Amino acid sequence: MILTVTLNTALDITYRVRSLRPHSSHRITDVTERPGGKGVNVARVLAALGHEVTVTGFVGGGTGRAVQDGLTALPGVTDALVPVDGVTRRTVAVVDERTGDTTQFNEPGPVVTRAEWSAFQEAYEHLLASADAVALCGSLPPGVPVGAYAGLVRTARAAGVPVLLDTSGEPLRRAVAARPDLVKPNADELAELTGAHEPLRATQDACRRGARAVVASLGREGLLAVTPEGHWRAAPPARMHGNPTGAGDSAVAGLLSGLVERLPWPERLARATALSAATVLTPVAGEFDRRAYEELLARVAVTTEVTAA
Amino acid sequence: MILTVTLNTALDITYRVRSLRPHSSHRITDVTERPGGKGVNVARVLAALGHEVTVTGFVGGGTGRAVQDGLTALPGVTDALVPVDGVTRRTVAVVDERTGDTTQFNEPGPVVTRAEWSAFQEAYEHLLASADAVALCGSLPPGVPVGAYAGLVRTARAAGVPVLLDTSGEPLRRAVAARPDLVKPNADELAELTGAHEPLRATQDACRRGARAVVASLGREGLLAVTPEGHWRAAPPARMHGNPTGAGDSAVAGLLSGLVERLPWPERLARATALSAATVLTPVAGEFDRRAYEELLARVAVTTEVTAA
Repeated sequence: MILTVTLNTALDITYRVRSLRPHSSHRITDVTERPGGKGVNVARVLAALGHEVTVTGFVGGGTGRAVQDGLTALPGVTDALVPVDGVTRRTVAVVDERTGDTTQFNEPGPVVTRAEWSAFQEAYEHLLASADAVALCGSLPPGVPVGAYAGLVRTARAAGVPVLLDTSGEPLRRAVAARPDLVKPNADELAELTGAHEPLRATQDACRRGARAVVASLGREGLLAVTPEGHWRAAPPARMHGNPTGAGDSAVAGLLSGLVERLPWPERLARATALSAATVLTPVAGEFDRRAYEELLARVAVTTEVTAA
Repeated sequence: MILTVTLNTALDITYRVRSLRPHSSHRITDVTERPGGKGVNVARVLAALGHEVTVTGFVGGGTGRAVQDGLTALPGVTDALVPVDGVTRRTVAVVDERTGDTTQFNEPGPVVTRAEWSAFQEAYEHLLASADAVALCGSLPPGVPVGAYAGLVRTARAAGVPVLLDTSGEPLRRAVAARPDLVKPNADELAELTGAHEPLRATQDACRRGARAVVASLGREGLLAVTPEGHWRAAPPARMHGNPTGAGDSAVAGLLSGLVERLPWPERLARATALSAATVLTPVAGEFDRRAYEELLARVAVTTEVTAA
């Protein structure tokens, strides 16, 4: 199975409004609610691709129960979340139907105690024993040490399980130094990590910091990969219009499934790019337009990149 | 005890943001969450005034459990909510700390089945047996018949329990005809009910439609009362700056406590006006600034109103 870690799981709530009017009252008629957090979105896409996935991370309170109920309803996904005394955070997305734009409110998440963090690490090590690969995704809830992902990367490497990392800021900086197999930053995360704004230079720099391979997601420009086997760019055939939320998570799912299936890099990148683009066409993260995905897969251009250095 | 009915209870969630920026993402650091709905706010204020209060209405799902946990923590408040299969709604208030303005998102509430509505009516009749007064507050959840409040007014009258009504639209129109003891519309609700925009004329018209007494809440202009004992205006000494949410609920609590304590009308109106103004000074509905309330109480001007007709 593939393991995805979401330390800060969420109950994702979406409100559709005819038009968002600040400082006024909105009567919501359309409410949707589902389990969220980057690793949960990755798991949903992996399951849709036919992989067995196990979801771990923290869960607590009434919102946590709602997250677990939602996971139970997903075929191919196993819930291995670790209970905490705190309460799983909510995220509220308000979609303006007039413009299609989303206004997002993200709660901070539960405070995780030292004992809960220890319990998680134990559960994680146990789960790695049956994992073909692991993805470490998203922000850290309060209380989890900033070096958390670095530790989880080392544990995965010690267990011989390939590890993909998708986070930002200081947790990313520390975990890259622990030598993960693959890091997937977006342009902002890459610039913050390396101080470089030119994508190829920044991606190569991120590699030098310890990652075996780096795949940067550059929005409408697609993916840029720096790997020991070569450097590539993968771009969708046209700009997609829609909701970019979750596009990065779908790219992670594409890369991870390609790794487990031992696809050559260009095929992994084509899959990740097509999944990412097909996710923009759907209104919610963790879902993709399957027909668009299959059509796009043949039309993604993957080109070898000449290195800068 | 005093009974308050909130058919569409809510879990009220408040997010404070430094500045609301539509179509962007907000990291929330300050989340508060409490039981809500008009009748729940009324109960909170009544309990703070020293009355024993019982809260009824519908409750369901994980949000419903959170509402009930919150009620348990309120001294003087007894939870007699009736369970439904649906899920209690959330309301999300986003407070912009820069301007002090609030942007509100209100979910619709659970769909109530015919059997659940029957179970509620039975529970209500039972609760009336030990009630000194009852307040019927707020909107109807989906599935509850539009004549619901009219029926609940008749049941209360048959039981000899004074009944106060605070709702709007068609449910208000129908329930007024069932002859409640007191109706508390705001200016908009009054205009919608009567078609008249001149407050005194509209208040008198609302009385003629069946209410024994009508107290209209006119925002910063205070209260206008048309009763069999006389007509009065009650106004705060100065305009209050703050959050008007819940000011009407506090007026209801003031009127209802005054009724149960058999205060003369001018004293009831002074209390309701002072409570209302002291609520504007606090950030959340159902709470008031007690020191401001006590100071304001002596300074509210209650004047006899010369009738128009």
